[in-house]
Amino acid sequence: MTKFMDVHHDMRGVTEKQLQEAHRADLAVEREEGVHFERAWADPSSGTVYCLSEGPSKEAVQRVHTRAGHPADEIHPVPLTVS
Amino acid sequence: MTKFMDVHHDMRGVTEKQLQEAHRADLAVEREEGVHFERAWADPSSGTVYCLSEGPSKEAVQRVHTRAGHPADEIHPVPLTVS
Repeated sequence: MTKFMDVHHDMRGVTEKQLQEAHRADLAVEREEGVHFERAWADPSSGTVYCLSEGPSKEAVQRVHTRAGHPADEIHPVPLTVS
Repeated sequence: MTKFMDVHHDMRGVTEKQLQEAHRADLAVEREEGVHFERAWADPSSGTVYCLSEGPSKEAVQRVHTRAGHPADEIHPVPLTVS
C-alpha cells in the first residue's frame, strides 16, 4: 500500500458541503478498489482540492474518483511522510 | 489562523533524511512567524513535496520556508478540510 496525494484543479467556489459530499462519494466506493481516502483540503478561491489516500496503485485511486464523478487532474505517490 | 498547503516542485530524488532535515529547519524558525508546519509528503520521482501548515498568512508561511532555505513554489490557503 502506498500513500497518494491527488490534486483537482478547476473546483473554484467549492463549498464545505460539496467537499463533504464528494468525500462521501469516494468513501462509498473506495473499498471495492482497496483504497482509503484519509483527508481532503480545499482552496475555493483558486479551485484547488488536495486528497490524501492510501491504496494499491495510482490507477485504483483514479478509479475511485472517476466512479464518484470527479476524476483527479494529478495523482502523485507520496512514499515519504514527515510529521 | 488558516491552514495552508504549499507545494515544492523540482525536489527530484529527495530522500527521507533530506525531507526530515528540511522539516526540522522549518520547525526551528516557525515560531517566530506564528506558523506551525504539521506534515509533509514527498514524491521523489516527480520531485514534488507538499507541506501542510497553519499560520496567520501565506507570506508568513513563505518567510519560514525561505529562512529555512527552501521557498515554496505555490502556497494555497485551504480553509476547508474533510477527514
